[in-house]
Amino acid sequence: MIKEINIQSTKREELIDVTSKVQELIDIEEGLCVVFCPHTTAGITINENADPDVNKDILMKLNKEIPKDEGYAHSEGNSDAHIKTSLIGSSETIIIENGKLKLETWQGIKFAEFDGPRNRKVIIKT
Amino acid sequence: MIKEINIQSTKREELIDVTSKVQELIDIEEGLCVVFCPHTTAGITINENADPDVNKDILMKLNKEIPKDEGYAHSEGNSDAHIKTSLIGSSETIIIENGKLKLETWQGIKFAEFDGPRNRKVIIKT
Amino acid sequence: MIKEINIQSTKREELIDVTSKVQELIDIEEGLCVVFCPHTTAGITINENADPDVNKDILMKLNKEIPKDEGYAHSEGNSDAHIKTSLIGSSETIIIENGKLKLETWQGIKFAEFDGPRNRKVIIKT
Repeated sequence: MIKEINIQSTKREELIDVTSKVQELIDIEEGLCVVFCPHTTAGITINENADPDVNKDILMKLNKEIPKDEGYAHSEGNSDAHIKTSLIGSSETIIIENGKLKLETWQGIKFAEFDGPRNRKVIIKT
Repeated sequence: MIKEINIQSTKREELIDVTSKVQELIDIEEGLCVVFCPHTTAGITINENADPDVNKDILMKLNKEIPKDEGYAHSEGNSDAHIKTSLIGSSETIIIENGKLKLETWQGIKFAEFDGPRNRKVIIKT
Repeated sequence: MIKEINIQSTKREELIDVTSKVQELIDIEEGLCVVFCPHTTAGITINENADPDVNKDILMKLNKEIPKDEGYAHSEGNSDAHIKTSLIGSSETIIIENGKLKLETWQGIKFAEFDGPRNRKVIIKT
């Protein structure tokens, strides 16, 4: 199956946990789940879902190294978001076992917004 | 199926759009397409296919942060290309629906050359 | 099938080649192999398996740009490892042809430890 999850980001940069929404869509016992981001200024990453300070540190460091303004050529003023997207990546592939995403306790699937706030979506295929 | 696309890069660093060449090879109605780069100094990324300035900004920033010479140990003089490859990644997995790569309007699949010009290839599996 | 490989890292940062261990588990003639890291401070990357200096340069550069201490909020003191994990990525998808991982001569699959030494594992699905 192929399904979509709608997301409303609320800040320019934000890591939004979508793990439980992806899990709800799993319709097979064993296989793969591809979580794909159909945007060029947002990506998908897997990281800690417990302490929100980890999200904060990841975004802080990315902004420090890849600031919004740095003499970029692209006239829309969001080249930093495109660069972050290529570094973080547009998708993750997760193994499904016994009908569940085979993630460890501390792992969560995050939608990585780099040019919000916007209405966004994530595409899921099992 | 498994197929290959040949690529001739023309610069040391270059983002080459391969979206239409990948689409031509799609032989199923629904499933996954893995685009894999079999080189250690080049990768695959998905990013904007409209304004070429985005490609320029991505490569400029990578070169600024990961310059060619920085006291690396590897004697071939292309450690920067190996590092960029691990950051950008060696593959992308794209969902296929109705016989088409499920990419949004602005998304293109890019072969990311970091140590060209060279004859390269990309492996496609559906 | 879904299988696990156990790994014992011996340093805080280390790239450990797992290619032959993954190959041993391949039980199909054609398809995909997902190599997934179930940790939030370690990832999976594909890079050169010949000159160990490439591993050294990748880790040196990551540490230079993302040092262990940099005013991070996360109290466990390993935010650098979480950031590196999101940049390197948690998985790789490799094509299988004729019962073998379709990697080129110089490519190896590396477990990327960023907060060792620890007992770790990698999950393999074909």
